[in-house]
Amino acid sequence: MAEANHESRGELALITELEQLLSARAAPSTVPFGDDMAALMSEMPRGLWTVDMLMDGVDFDSTQHDWATIGRKSMAVNLSDCAAMAACPAAALCAVSLADSLAMTDAIALIRGAHAFGQRFGCPIVGGDTNSWPHPTVISITVVATTPDNRTPIRRDGARPGDQLWLSGPVGGSILGRHLTFEPRVDLALRIADQLGPHAMIDISDGLALDLGRILQASRCGAVLLEDHLASAIHPDAHRLAAQDGRAARDHGLHDGEDFELIVVLPPDTPTAAAERLGLLHLGMIEADAGLWLAAADGTRTPIPIKGWEHFQ
Amino acid sequence: MAEANHESRGELALITELEQLLSARAAPSTVPFGDDMAALMSEMPRGLWTVDMLMDGVDFDSTQHDWATIGRKSMAVNLSDCAAMAACPAAALCAVSLADSLAMTDAIALIRGAHAFGQRFGCPIVGGDTNSWPHPTVISITVVATTPDNRTPIRRDGARPGDQLWLSGPVGGSILGRHLTFEPRVDLALRIADQLGPHAMIDISDGLALDLGRILQASRCGAVLLEDHLASAIHPDAHRLAAQDGRAARDHGLHDGEDFELIVVLPPDTPTAAAERLGLLHLGMIEADAGLWLAAADGTRTPIPIKGWEHFQ
Repeated sequence: MAEANHESRGELALITELEQLLSARAAPSTVPFGDDMAALMSEMPRGLWTVDMLMDGVDFDSTQHDWATIGRKSMAVNLSDCAAMAACPAAALCAVSLADSLAMTDAIALIRGAHAFGQRFGCPIVGGDTNSWPHPTVISITVVATTPDNRTPIRRDGARPGDQLWLSGPVGGSILGRHLTFEPRVDLALRIADQLGPHAMIDISDGLALDLGRILQASRCGAVLLEDHLASAIHPDAHRLAAQDGRAARDHGLHDGEDFELIVVLPPDTPTAAAERLGLLHLGMIEADAGLWLAAADGTRTPIPIKGWEHFQ
Repeated sequence: MAEANHESRGELALITELEQLLSARAAPSTVPFGDDMAALMSEMPRGLWTVDMLMDGVDFDSTQHDWATIGRKSMAVNLSDCAAMAACPAAALCAVSLADSLAMTDAIALIRGAHAFGQRFGCPIVGGDTNSWPHPTVISITVVATTPDNRTPIRRDGARPGDQLWLSGPVGGSILGRHLTFEPRVDLALRIADQLGPHAMIDISDGLALDLGRILQASRCGAVLLEDHLASAIHPDAHRLAAQDGRAARDHGLHDGEDFELIVVLPPDTPTAAAERLGLLHLGMIEADAGLWLAAADGTRTPIPIKGWEHFQ
């Protein structure tokens, strides 16, 4: 395959194509195409929904991970999308194509793991579709959610110059295990929405830089991360992983996927104490000019590449 | 694998296990577990949703079928579930794991085919999840729907002894092509619900006998099919296929999957002309005693095996 063609197969390119293809849909929506969840339908203005598909060998490894934990992750990634919109998950459908070699007990453990974790968040599995085939197992969970008190969902296109940039927790090195067992920030997101009136949020599925880039692109602005603040937001796992592979811990923090922490954009006048009371970590600020920058203590700026995990790379 | 264990892996067995596992869900539902669609959530009493997962090499063959048609089928099977509940489809999410070898143009054709067909039914794709991996392509579409005028959805557990049994069209031999290009009976189902007050409906995904068996099991009753009426409801494709493989055309009509016609259970006093005006084909009647029977003109009865397409066979 030619290099040009290869590059054109990036996930962002495909999503851009799909956005153009699908944007001529009949009903106007309260949520732009490509946000963390879609509006359910015009008759149900409070409803949101989202789907995630996980594949053995890509999103989990059934030779290493137990099926209950795999089920948990399959549900948790959807709950994290709910958190990103400050929405309350309500119910799930689970569709599976089980590898022919999978034992019935493992299939049950998979569904039970997803269902039990969903129930913790008020989001039971209420239906689905079961299939089998001679290839690795695929799991697709769809979740519907509502926003409390008819509140507008928190989108990714509301960041404005001067806004503050915060993180719900430290990032990097999730591949050491957290990508399977993370806690979706649903409750925290509701408290952020209640108390701080965020302008934009997204959950980190493909990396801090790449997912922040999505906020910046949707909001048509840029951002600067403060070097010392970023250093405090690097997870110990990123340091452990850096010691193993020789890359910088900061690179892992910026570009590793599947942290599932929230990037939170708050109004300029938000009191620091109010954000810190919720456990948020300050990272930097939104700027008018496009681009993502790292600012050293002396003011020197270096560009941060907006890259992370992408299918079709 | 031991034979006993092999048998325990039947799809019905798995679904029975899942029903027990998932039945302890928090909110009471207007639709029993395992019907064609699930109730969306308690805040949205009119809402229904459904998901279907299709896999290359199982539900379609990308070496033979074009991707737009594959996309159409992926949407159509969900629209058929809407028809089975007499619900109006409203919007869809589409999750895909695309084979690494798939060209971008084919990926676009797949989504475009699904989206365009959905739009014909007022059901555009409004979001989804795109992935790639080194195995055959998997497509999972979720559809939400509503019932018009707050009407109760038509479930599969409402058949009563004395009810009439009808079909929306002839069955059998869909593998010759109709399984890809069938027309979901959405409009017809709405007219049936409006004009005839059906007691139960289901769409034929796994075969007339097997899907009728699901109505009988859910409704705790039996049914008898009239031999000459059934003969009139066998599709020409079933006869063509029978000429090729030496099996009886009636066997194809009873046990082939993916016809996506509706099995319609009507009240005992329904005028024949009213059902025939909608193009329905009379098949037989519901009885109190469990079992599915074929009745010859002389009254002789032979049992019909309740079998069809099952995963995990």
